[in-house]
Amino acid sequence: MSELLTADFMLKNETGKMLYHKYAAKMPIYDYHCHVSPQEIWEDKAYENITQAWLYGDHYKWRLMRAMGFDESYITGGQSDYDRFLAFAKTVSYCIGNPMYHWTHMELKTYFGINEELNEESAPAIWEKANAILQGGLTVRKIIEQSNVAVVCTTDDPADSLIYHQKIKEEGKMKTKVLPTFRPEKAMNPTKEYLETLSEASGIKITNFVTLMQALDNRMDYFHENGCRISDHSFGDIPFRKASLHELNIMVSFVLRGGELGKRQKQALQTMMMLHLGRGYAKRGWAMQLHIAALRNNNTRKFNELGADKGFDSIDDGLFARPLSHLLDALAMTDELPKTILYSLNPRDNYMLATMIGNFQGGMPGKMQLGSGWWFNDQRDGMEEQMRALANLGMLSRFVGMLTDSRSFLSYTRHDYFRRIMCNLIGKWVEEGEYPHNEARLGQIVQDICYNNAEAYFNL
Amino acid sequence: MSELLTADFMLKNETGKMLYHKYAAKMPIYDYHCHVSPQEIWEDKAYENITQAWLYGDHYKWRLMRAMGFDESYITGGQSDYDRFLAFAKTVSYCIGNPMYHWTHMELKTYFGINEELNEESAPAIWEKANAILQGGLTVRKIIEQSNVAVVCTTDDPADSLIYHQKIKEEGKMKTKVLPTFRPEKAMNPTKEYLETLSEASGIKITNFVTLMQALDNRMDYFHENGCRISDHSFGDIPFRKASLHELNIMVSFVLRGGELGKRQKQALQTMMMLHLGRGYAKRGWAMQLHIAALRNNNTRKFNELGADKGFDSIDDGLFARPLSHLLDALAMTDELPKTILYSLNPRDNYMLATMIGNFQGGMPGKMQLGSGWWFNDQRDGMEEQMRALANLGMLSRFVGMLTDSRSFLSYTRHDYFRRIMCNLIGKWVEEGEYPHNEARLGQIVQDICYNNAEAYFNL
Amino acid sequence: MSELLTADFMLKNETGKMLYHKYAAKMPIYDYHCHVSPQEIWEDKAYENITQAWLYGDHYKWRLMRAMGFDESYITGGQSDYDRFLAFAKTVSYCIGNPMYHWTHMELKTYFGINEELNEESAPAIWEKANAILQGGLTVRKIIEQSNVAVVCTTDDPADSLIYHQKIKEEGKMKTKVLPTFRPEKAMNPTKEYLETLSEASGIKITNFVTLMQALDNRMDYFHENGCRISDHSFGDIPFRKASLHELNIMVSFVLRGGELGKRQKQALQTMMMLHLGRGYAKRGWAMQLHIAALRNNNTRKFNELGADKGFDSIDDGLFARPLSHLLDALAMTDELPKTILYSLNPRDNYMLATMIGNFQGGMPGKMQLGSGWWFNDQRDGMEEQMRALANLGMLSRFVGMLTDSRSFLSYTRHDYFRRIMCNLIGKWVEEGEYPHNEARLGQIVQDICYNNAEAYFNL
Repeated sequence: MSELLTADFMLKNETGKMLYHKYAAKMPIYDYHCHVSPQEIWEDKAYENITQAWLYGDHYKWRLMRAMGFDESYITGGQSDYDRFLAFAKTVSYCIGNPMYHWTHMELKTYFGINEELNEESAPAIWEKANAILQGGLTVRKIIEQSNVAVVCTTDDPADSLIYHQKIKEEGKMKTKVLPTFRPEKAMNPTKEYLETLSEASGIKITNFVTLMQALDNRMDYFHENGCRISDHSFGDIPFRKASLHELNIMVSFVLRGGELGKRQKQALQTMMMLHLGRGYAKRGWAMQLHIAALRNNNTRKFNELGADKGFDSIDDGLFARPLSHLLDALAMTDELPKTILYSLNPRDNYMLATMIGNFQGGMPGKMQLGSGWWFNDQRDGMEEQMRALANLGMLSRFVGMLTDSRSFLSYTRHDYFRRIMCNLIGKWVEEGEYPHNEARLGQIVQDICYNNAEAYFNL
Repeated sequence: MSELLTADFMLKNETGKMLYHKYAAKMPIYDYHCHVSPQEIWEDKAYENITQAWLYGDHYKWRLMRAMGFDESYITGGQSDYDRFLAFAKTVSYCIGNPMYHWTHMELKTYFGINEELNEESAPAIWEKANAILQGGLTVRKIIEQSNVAVVCTTDDPADSLIYHQKIKEEGKMKTKVLPTFRPEKAMNPTKEYLETLSEASGIKITNFVTLMQALDNRMDYFHENGCRISDHSFGDIPFRKASLHELNIMVSFVLRGGELGKRQKQALQTMMMLHLGRGYAKRGWAMQLHIAALRNNNTRKFNELGADKGFDSIDDGLFARPLSHLLDALAMTDELPKTILYSLNPRDNYMLATMIGNFQGGMPGKMQLGSGWWFNDQRDGMEEQMRALANLGMLSRFVGMLTDSRSFLSYTRHDYFRRIMCNLIGKWVEEGEYPHNEARLGQIVQDICYNNAEAYFNL
Repeated sequence: MSELLTADFMLKNETGKMLYHKYAAKMPIYDYHCHVSPQEIWEDKAYENITQAWLYGDHYKWRLMRAMGFDESYITGGQSDYDRFLAFAKTVSYCIGNPMYHWTHMELKTYFGINEELNEESAPAIWEKANAILQGGLTVRKIIEQSNVAVVCTTDDPADSLIYHQKIKEEGKMKTKVLPTFRPEKAMNPTKEYLETLSEASGIKITNFVTLMQALDNRMDYFHENGCRISDHSFGDIPFRKASLHELNIMVSFVLRGGELGKRQKQALQTMMMLHLGRGYAKRGWAMQLHIAALRNNNTRKFNELGADKGFDSIDDGLFARPLSHLLDALAMTDELPKTILYSLNPRDNYMLATMIGNFQGGMPGKMQLGSGWWFNDQRDGMEEQMRALANLGMLSRFVGMLTDSRSFLSYTRHDYFRRIMCNLIGKWVEEGEYPHNEARLGQIVQDICYNNAEAYFNL
């Protein structure tokens, strides 16, 4: 079979090609949000075969294989690694129009030098070739190095020791910065057990709301010392419900006695925690990420069998313009709103969010950001719509750009995918006379979105 | 005037043309959801003129004629058939960008050999020519036969005798299978009168929830014997509110005494009915269709004058990701979720639904389906957006494809319209290097979406 | 630098170019909704420099400058006019993909004969050249005259004396009709102070709901005498909550005693006022505009510093299909629904609204209208999506077309921008074989949308 992915893949106009090849392609990667394991980086994890790298943890692939009708044993496990790979090969070749078709072949080309379609026929040879390369030393660190990654920000619990981040830093061998992100997901949905863990990690005995905040402050300081400059929150809806300190203390006590908060109580607790944390982020110069509108664990039977993050999450349709406005406003009132990146999993929120950020801009370039097409939107149409929304309603040229959001080390090619789509979009506007062909400025804008804006923004 | 519709209508790239002409065009039609009358098929209804075929029951046309400013007498009746036709001719010629412009001329070309624009000038000649063909024997059965329709699934009430389906089958003359669909709309919104009708049809005296379910089970069996393998439900929102059997029995009793249920009661009754029915569909191997987000009968004055389905329905904007998730989850818990097709009338729900289906896939190819662009979305942009959503978020190649959803026998051309748009979209991806030009596989995918997937899925 | 905007700017196909240059370009402008000051028209306001014309009141520009990171003193004021202009020049040149890039250069070309990019380098010369032209007599009336504006409808409070409209009319020098629009925003959200103002303006002492309605009737008559034929309302959500006259009287009394209504009371008051006003509009042959889904004054700190309309508003995400349907239905019940134009700031409502209008069409061409891309949607993609929604779901050819909605006299070029985008869209359909190349009809449709439809519709 002839070459599958050409040098100009996704580039459909000459200006876009020029911008990509001359300006975008060689920029380092600034992966400011992902879910890879710092331990695996520290240990420089090696893979015996491509199934381990691809199919042991990728819910994107699992969902497609389920839609193809394969038995779960081929998906989350039970069958042999080869049989699972073969099932995926049969699936991916029919994934017309899906980003998985592109991601798979970009990864095969970039990391394995394979530029033919993965399908039932080609599967045996690709299995051999890819495994040989993995066994020949394509370890986690090798992948990162080869991918020209300047920064990796992992996602970490406040109670985490950050031991692997520290070891990596102390060792001093990696050119890539590997830094933690403060994600107080469990603290925002506290259980007795978690609060005890957090007490221990912080050395502050949590007995009420005040001490809970003190413990989080302590951990923010600790994360800050370890290079963290970014936080991350996930919400179904955005809560905005105020409560008195007295009420909050009662709620935390209740949790500490093993109680489970009601919906309104949880909203109030989360609201007041967000106000405290937001101020803490602002004070420390951190960026705050809000990931909104994921509907998780929809399939209880499968959740009971397999646990979370196994491909049973989808897009929610809640309303949150007003509470989000109130939350940002409450922080802005006292000039304590941190740099903020807003993501909604539902692309129908793009315009709402792209105008919401405009309400709170100021003080630095692009302080408020519309996050790049997230998760299900991390594909051709989703990324283009996010960029169009941002361009139409704000300043695309100040965009901090792409992140992988991935659990897989092989997915740095998604930055390349994004860059091609971004250059193609900009090139199209230029060729259609909507923006002048000023190569110097276009090149600068492209490189800024690829890397420079993120570097200036996060200031890691 | 020169030819209006060319052979390559809607086909804007060479690969799309090839795929359409070589693979799609000749596939039979599998019309798994429509609203045509089985009685009219049995009786082989004949039309005196094109107004009877086009304007006696088509709310799509009526709405446009109202927007054009015609008096209602030209629309739902009062004026002569010719004057109504002329009013429509004046309207359609100004319907730039509307699918009606395309549907009208595809129907004129396909069934009447007329390939010029219908407008005020051409109306007299087209009236004569079309009427001559109708009177010359273009009856309902002739239209179906000529359209190469393999299957027609009508939409039927559980209390229906299915007498016309039986007559058609017993007669054995039609090559097309004409099968019923189980649509318990009235049972889900029960009145005393309807429950009595259902008691009579089932031979089971409905006195409470239990006997209501027994009666529906009885009718499911009856429909199954008559070849039914598909159900259909329509919802504004999706309800999800549980109730005890005791409460449900009280509700049904209350209805039987002529009472009208409150909103919450109705939601609870519908939820528990859906759980029972969903399990019944799963057990029988049926597919379940959920049509969501229609806002019906908005114009009370016109409803009082003309009744339902006269063109006064529109798109709703409710939220239903969470209750829909709960409903599907409740069925999946015990592995009793049937094959399901989800449609929302509001295209802003496409992404939510296209990811929702991914939560419940498994066990067979494409068990969960994102329904084809429905009603107001049954046009170029709506169909393309539905296919893009499905492709980006799942497997387009497993899509069961198009249905007419129509009340008119002349609308089989909508399958052709869909096929052209589908081949054009796929062809574009191929020509832009996003998927390889593997003709055998592309041809297979196209034919699968046109016909094979539906045949395997519904297994009629 | 070579020419920035070509004659065929935004026109990407030959049919579109032909339609634009031959049919659209020379049509007069019918600006049926804007926020310019009638006093400034009467006084024929002159500008000392381009900053006064551009940056003293344009929140679109301010938001972009904030996203660029400029200090507020460059935005809403403090720095010198030249420094503010320079800051804008630096901003706009980086606004790739934003309509501001286009608007700015269209205004420079049209009114100042400048067809090069405004950026840091070109700013000094453009400052000189533009200011010379402004000081050389490019006053407000000159701009209007030069722009070929047939009608300007300002936006006015019911208590307004309309003195400037009267002076303009009495003077009789302007070829452009300058007419008021009835916008009872303050009456719909009444305070004691406002009701006293309205009592005075109407000569009717407002003591309860009945006299409030009488006062508004009086002002409608007054506005009608002064040429007004259009009303305008702004809503977050659409309210629909009925109340008895007794309850309404109590609410108005409460306000007159300085009270503030609760949310539900306000909804009820607004509902009943809308029913009264809608009937009043219908009786007088006025058009009713409903602007929905703006979320205003999100940034309280900035609101306290700068006041309203300073660029801190964004898109809301409320649900309103059902209450909107009820409101229109209640008016239609007695055949008292006026001509109505529906706008939502959230483009995800396009399809809902485009089908909602179809429920109430009839009696005249395009009685119910889907409003042109409003505010944040007034750009390439937003306008095209609005036209596609309207075309797919109704009759684009009956569309009353563009309005500026602007506070700036230099923004008449937005009509030109719209026309280019509209001709381009129609031209594309024609060249792709979706509508015949019937030049006479296409030219008529284009001219109708540019001007004729609005003239017939508003009948000013």
